[in-house]
Amino acid sequence: MTETELIAQLKPLLPTNDFVVNGAGDDCAVLELGSPDTQTLFKTDAVVEGIHFAADTDPERVGRKALARCLSDIAAMGGTPTAAVVTLGLPRGFDPERVRALYRGLNRLAAQHQVAVVGGETTANPGAWLINVALLGTVPRGRALLRSGAKTGDALFVTGELGGSLAGKHLDFEPRLAEGRWLVECGGIGAVMDLSDGLASDLPKLLAASEIGGAELHKSAVPISRDAKERSRSSDLAKPSFVAAVTDGEDFELLFTVRPGHSVRVLDEWKARFPSVRLSCIGKLTDGPGIVVRDGARLQPLPTRGYEHFA
Amino acid sequence: MTETELIAQLKPLLPTNDFVVNGAGDDCAVLELGSPDTQTLFKTDAVVEGIHFAADTDPERVGRKALARCLSDIAAMGGTPTAAVVTLGLPRGFDPERVRALYRGLNRLAAQHQVAVVGGETTANPGAWLINVALLGTVPRGRALLRSGAKTGDALFVTGELGGSLAGKHLDFEPRLAEGRWLVECGGIGAVMDLSDGLASDLPKLLAASEIGGAELHKSAVPISRDAKERSRSSDLAKPSFVAAVTDGEDFELLFTVRPGHSVRVLDEWKARFPSVRLSCIGKLTDGPGIVVRDGARLQPLPTRGYEHFA
Repeated sequence: MTETELIAQLKPLLPTNDFVVNGAGDDCAVLELGSPDTQTLFKTDAVVEGIHFAADTDPERVGRKALARCLSDIAAMGGTPTAAVVTLGLPRGFDPERVRALYRGLNRLAAQHQVAVVGGETTANPGAWLINVALLGTVPRGRALLRSGAKTGDALFVTGELGGSLAGKHLDFEPRLAEGRWLVECGGIGAVMDLSDGLASDLPKLLAASEIGGAELHKSAVPISRDAKERSRSSDLAKPSFVAAVTDGEDFELLFTVRPGHSVRVLDEWKARFPSVRLSCIGKLTDGPGIVVRDGARLQPLPTRGYEHFA
Repeated sequence: MTETELIAQLKPLLPTNDFVVNGAGDDCAVLELGSPDTQTLFKTDAVVEGIHFAADTDPERVGRKALARCLSDIAAMGGTPTAAVVTLGLPRGFDPERVRALYRGLNRLAAQHQVAVVGGETTANPGAWLINVALLGTVPRGRALLRSGAKTGDALFVTGELGGSLAGKHLDFEPRLAEGRWLVECGGIGAVMDLSDGLASDLPKLLAASEIGGAELHKSAVPISRDAKERSRSSDLAKPSFVAAVTDGEDFELLFTVRPGHSVRVLDEWKARFPSVRLSCIGKLTDGPGIVVRDGARLQPLPTRGYEHFA
């Protein structure tokens, strides 16, 4: 059973109440907590030694990553992060200096984005270091960017470059917070999500949330990172670079759709506002069925699996 | 190094911002998120297999406990819980039915207290099941019950009975939410916290937060649970029941202080409002130094250590 299948079983059973605008299933939940102008975003996420970082990874970068992953989810909703609480699971005989270093990295990124860290639980965890961050954010009332906002015919955009993040980006990526907030004000935007498991795994989630049958990707338009290309060239056994770009995961870029007729304007305004962040139109949403990759005149189905945590 | 010492080192380094009314160090953080009438409570907490529950514990009770611990923290602030997000750490080869059962227990308790569950992450965790819950709550503006509100001369009260919770209460306790909300309206209340690590470990935290030198406990007034008494009688090697009551931990009762002159009224009103929940006046706060136990004419220092997670 995959993570996706398990969550699909559990989601319909979760209790809800009048505070909930959008429950589980998007990058963050959207809550109504009584503020006249804003709604609250709420997210939890964990990184685990041996899964999301190695035993010898610099603990400052581990702490940074634990928070940055949640910041990326706030970014994908168009929000501004406000306050985080942290749970540390620590193996027996842990080195307290590693904990201090971990918090240094986490605190530095928090301060950089004006995020308060308002609680820090610790517990024993026999097998591995585990860092869970729960993060609150704020978004203008009714303006949260959802996965469910796409329509057939929307153009598909992605920020930055994809693939090869294990070379370092999975630790040091910059959450696209300013970019997400800009999308709220931009107009013509459909659905938005962040790429955590890889385009081949995440795009189907966007399509499902928006009840759209398929998408057509232009192979040559998908921005492939230098790390993915180098790794691909390094060995006959490595993934082809396009496959790496859509399946490696942990890109933490924004994937979003743009209504017909808005693409040129969005690209122009983006270049003026974020000159150092690449933005690529990689295809469009279709009636499907499924996701196909166009390579010149050739159309091929996309193997729609990215990184599955239980695989 | 104990958990307490480590947290004391880390706490002053946590970044803060204008959203924060009370940061780390109380049962919950108190945040200001723009609502005119209310403030937001924020808490995170984890339970881990082999530490907080056994491998063969009924998973429904495990899920219940994971949420109930956070509810107890909301109760200790006088708040009302609103929405939770859950992170599950799952060992390789886990049984999906255990996950479903865990969520059944958690969801049932959530529904009972009108709490929405708005996100459920899962991740691999090599050594043990781990369940982290982050919980939001709401409290009338400026009315949150803090650990720092006590004064020398306050009387010390505790709800329920203490000790022996491993016999079952650590899984099945009722978070004192109605009682906490009542304390907000009651008047004459000083400091409030919940007992998670045992009175001998938690009372020093209340004293430290309130900058108070000591306390005098009346040994015969401390309410000892039947489980603690039975366990004590069962073996010459077991803790004496009073020691069990103040050191076993996981009582999840409320510990609070009452201003001089209000104790009789609080006890009377409590009995009318919560006839089935015992309330005991167990002593008073003093200039100290330290916590002493009065047994008739005899005064003894209290060994001030409860359950330490890293011990």
